[in-house]
Amino acid sequence: MEFLRNAWYLVAWSGDVKPNELLGRTVLERPLVLLRGAEGDLVALDDRCPHRFAPLSRGRFDGRTIACGYHGLEFDTTGTCIRNPHGAGRIPRAATVRRHPVVERHGAVWLWAGDREPDPSMIPDFSRLDTDDTTTRRDHLVMDVPYDLIVDNLLDCSHTSFLHDGILGNEGMLDTATEVTQVGTTINVIRSSESVPPPGMFDMLFHNDGAPVDTWTDFRWDPPSHLLLDVGVTAPGRPREEGVGYFGTHILTPETSTTTHYFTTASRWGVRPGTESDEMRLKISDMRRFAFEEQDEPMIRAQHATIAAFARAEGAPTRPVLLETDSGVVRWHRIMDGLIAAERRDA
Amino acid sequence: MEFLRNAWYLVAWSGDVKPNELLGRTVLERPLVLLRGAEGDLVALDDRCPHRFAPLSRGRFDGRTIACGYHGLEFDTTGTCIRNPHGAGRIPRAATVRRHPVVERHGAVWLWAGDREPDPSMIPDFSRLDTDDTTTRRDHLVMDVPYDLIVDNLLDCSHTSFLHDGILGNEGMLDTATEVTQVGTTINVIRSSESVPPPGMFDMLFHNDGAPVDTWTDFRWDPPSHLLLDVGVTAPGRPREEGVGYFGTHILTPETSTTTHYFTTASRWGVRPGTESDEMRLKISDMRRFAFEEQDEPMIRAQHATIAAFARAEGAPTRPVLLETDSGVVRWHRIMDGLIAAERRDA
Amino acid sequence: MEFLRNAWYLVAWSGDVKPNELLGRTVLERPLVLLRGAEGDLVALDDRCPHRFAPLSRGRFDGRTIACGYHGLEFDTTGTCIRNPHGAGRIPRAATVRRHPVVERHGAVWLWAGDREPDPSMIPDFSRLDTDDTTTRRDHLVMDVPYDLIVDNLLDCSHTSFLHDGILGNEGMLDTATEVTQVGTTINVIRSSESVPPPGMFDMLFHNDGAPVDTWTDFRWDPPSHLLLDVGVTAPGRPREEGVGYFGTHILTPETSTTTHYFTTASRWGVRPGTESDEMRLKISDMRRFAFEEQDEPMIRAQHATIAAFARAEGAPTRPVLLETDSGVVRWHRIMDGLIAAERRDA
Repeated sequence: MEFLRNAWYLVAWSGDVKPNELLGRTVLERPLVLLRGAEGDLVALDDRCPHRFAPLSRGRFDGRTIACGYHGLEFDTTGTCIRNPHGAGRIPRAATVRRHPVVERHGAVWLWAGDREPDPSMIPDFSRLDTDDTTTRRDHLVMDVPYDLIVDNLLDCSHTSFLHDGILGNEGMLDTATEVTQVGTTINVIRSSESVPPPGMFDMLFHNDGAPVDTWTDFRWDPPSHLLLDVGVTAPGRPREEGVGYFGTHILTPETSTTTHYFTTASRWGVRPGTESDEMRLKISDMRRFAFEEQDEPMIRAQHATIAAFARAEGAPTRPVLLETDSGVVRWHRIMDGLIAAERRDA
Repeated sequence: MEFLRNAWYLVAWSGDVKPNELLGRTVLERPLVLLRGAEGDLVALDDRCPHRFAPLSRGRFDGRTIACGYHGLEFDTTGTCIRNPHGAGRIPRAATVRRHPVVERHGAVWLWAGDREPDPSMIPDFSRLDTDDTTTRRDHLVMDVPYDLIVDNLLDCSHTSFLHDGILGNEGMLDTATEVTQVGTTINVIRSSESVPPPGMFDMLFHNDGAPVDTWTDFRWDPPSHLLLDVGVTAPGRPREEGVGYFGTHILTPETSTTTHYFTTASRWGVRPGTESDEMRLKISDMRRFAFEEQDEPMIRAQHATIAAFARAEGAPTRPVLLETDSGVVRWHRIMDGLIAAERRDA
Repeated sequence: MEFLRNAWYLVAWSGDVKPNELLGRTVLERPLVLLRGAEGDLVALDDRCPHRFAPLSRGRFDGRTIACGYHGLEFDTTGTCIRNPHGAGRIPRAATVRRHPVVERHGAVWLWAGDREPDPSMIPDFSRLDTDDTTTRRDHLVMDVPYDLIVDNLLDCSHTSFLHDGILGNEGMLDTATEVTQVGTTINVIRSSESVPPPGMFDMLFHNDGAPVDTWTDFRWDPPSHLLLDVGVTAPGRPREEGVGYFGTHILTPETSTTTHYFTTASRWGVRPGTESDEMRLKISDMRRFAFEEQDEPMIRAQHATIAAFARAEGAPTRPVLLETDSGVVRWHRIMDGLIAAERRDA
């Protein structure tokens, strides 16, 4: 699988990188170690000592110095070797660890994976994460499937009526057009239904009486795989502001060609009296995690295995049959193919 | 591994395909879904929705319509898409699932895996399965070895005296000639012993006194891997009809190049008073399953691993040393090589 | 990975090969079966029956005859087929099993893996194993890493101060020069420290008072991967003979390109009153096994995975940065590269 390189990838929630700890995390096939310097600055280094290639994440860190756990070479947080504890202590000039550009924003750590100058303005706006105190647990799942099949899953959310029937969708929401708009490389995939039975989770958050609602499920996608979901319900014919909903972050980072970091959270708005509590936030987190881990992942894994099995059996991959609901899926692939082709030309 | 394509393969016992259920089963590397239509007709389709390649076997089936579990496309039992539940509901012409020819016979489902016109007269005669009420459990094992090593195992049943010593063979049966006859592409491999100690299972079914018996173990093989065993014992010098025996079906279907569906059963004849009961049928099933799973499979798996290890260590495969007892083994390979070569020429 | 062929490899401790038993063991990717003949002679054969390639180690052995467990062919301990138990019993001339040269010495079984005439004088001297009654358990571990990374680990024992901190090394031992001497293809890697805190295991064996000691850690390496460790402590400024120490055998045999047989033991000298007992021998065995299995192996496995991951990510392997402590590591690789290149030229 060819990845887009000159792009930001979310590699950890800020809170995952704890003081004086080393966090090993593989991103785009490359093992990295994440740490927080004494001044609170976030650092990403190759997770490999240049001496004998032990992972630095198996070493020790005191806030200033990383000591390799194998032979004890010490590095500062720029990746420069500052101590060889053995014998005369000579430090070879090549004893450095590659440092990768990272930016901390929206409570998350973003890594620039390319050779071009990093441009922080390319980090999509997830500012909802900065302000809202009704945000669910910041979740991190590792899914045993390639990242592109998860983006396909999200941008064709017609699947919610089947795979997440009762929780996130239902039969009543089927008669929905899928509209796609594009500005620059940002896509919006917009779906709404009028006067339909409320999906389980939204009924719980709204009137909890099963009465019909208007619903919407709008996804914003930015390259390479950063999605913001604007989802909610309101009383039939009423403005969205009178209803309830949440902004869902669905940010995917390839770990390898076949496994994916899934970073997700939801920040609610229009909270009804009696529906906001730690317990409720946990309940929503658990419900979403169930949908991703117990419904999406097994299906996508089966889909991935099926694609591979038929490619073997037939000697070549097959092209999918496209439906109108695939318009978002088609669009994001077209944009990514263009960006990757441009990157290949530049290299 | 190259498979013979224009041939019938047993893919399921009839009873395994239950009303309103979808049965996923991989055959010759290809994932299929089996189902029984409302009229009882047996259907085999590619286990892959043409839209996003989810396995159809993860969907729902009501006897008439298969609904994909991912985005809800619906298909009839010919594999034609009959409903797109989303938006305007347009159905692309290419939205079809490949249907494979199947025939139900002898309580089993036979799949034609080739491109030529299927010829049901090529299904070997297993009519013993139709009539006999003393048939053991219809067993289905998946063995973690290539199918050809299992055919080798069966067609050289000189191994029973060692690998199944006490149950299906013994030292006394060694002094046996192996005779091979061929009619068309059907082979018979014939072995018999006179006045030898009875193998454990046959003593149990016959006089249960350990007295010497005449034994025979005759295998019929038809391409690609369909074996009928005629095995039994009788009193020394007496006609076979006065003894006891069973017809064993040993039908092998490659799941992949390295794993195999093993369909097996035994129908007894010459049943002695007091030896026929549900309990006895279960006992024989269990004894045979023990022989296949606890004796044959580990040995064949070790053989397979040894072949692979030496091919790696020596850079090339080694040819086996042939014994007289291999005459059946040599013959079936020669026939299969010819059929596969002819198929390759035609293609 | 290319192995040195014309060399001795330790394949088992003598006691592992028990009378009338067959021991299957893979060495340099090749499955072997080891056995002890009726006269006590040690034999190594290919672990493969020439008939159908079942592993002979799954058969039976009575001290004179190996009977294959699959179809019962019998072999003498030279690997010659001496009985075909079936039918007329004809034995094909090709029915032989390759026998490999082995020598039993120092309570261990040494296999010659090359095509040249075996030269027993090339077996390094491990005579300490013959005489010393204070030898710990003869241990055999299979490590899930390539053998060369274990040799690297041992010949740069500067790692003991970090990976085995408290048990086998400590910070005080860092200010140590690494000296390498070479005679023929034998290397000695010599390290010593003066007046440093005693590592845990040695304090236990010496005065058990934590008082400073002089220490030494001298490794002798012979091709391909046979190491003898001379390690000990003595009172500051006193001769080594007044201290305590042990000779450690660390003999590595590649099982496959990525897994390794690790044969190890330690024979003590200078035993203090009250420190010699079966319990103490067991305690030292357990402590060493802990260091190898719980400290070395996980680190080397992580190192191996890191090397592989970066080779994938960067499309090519990286060269390590060398420190002075690597002088032994550099030397053994240079000798082995030369020996393997010479062997390739001769072939």
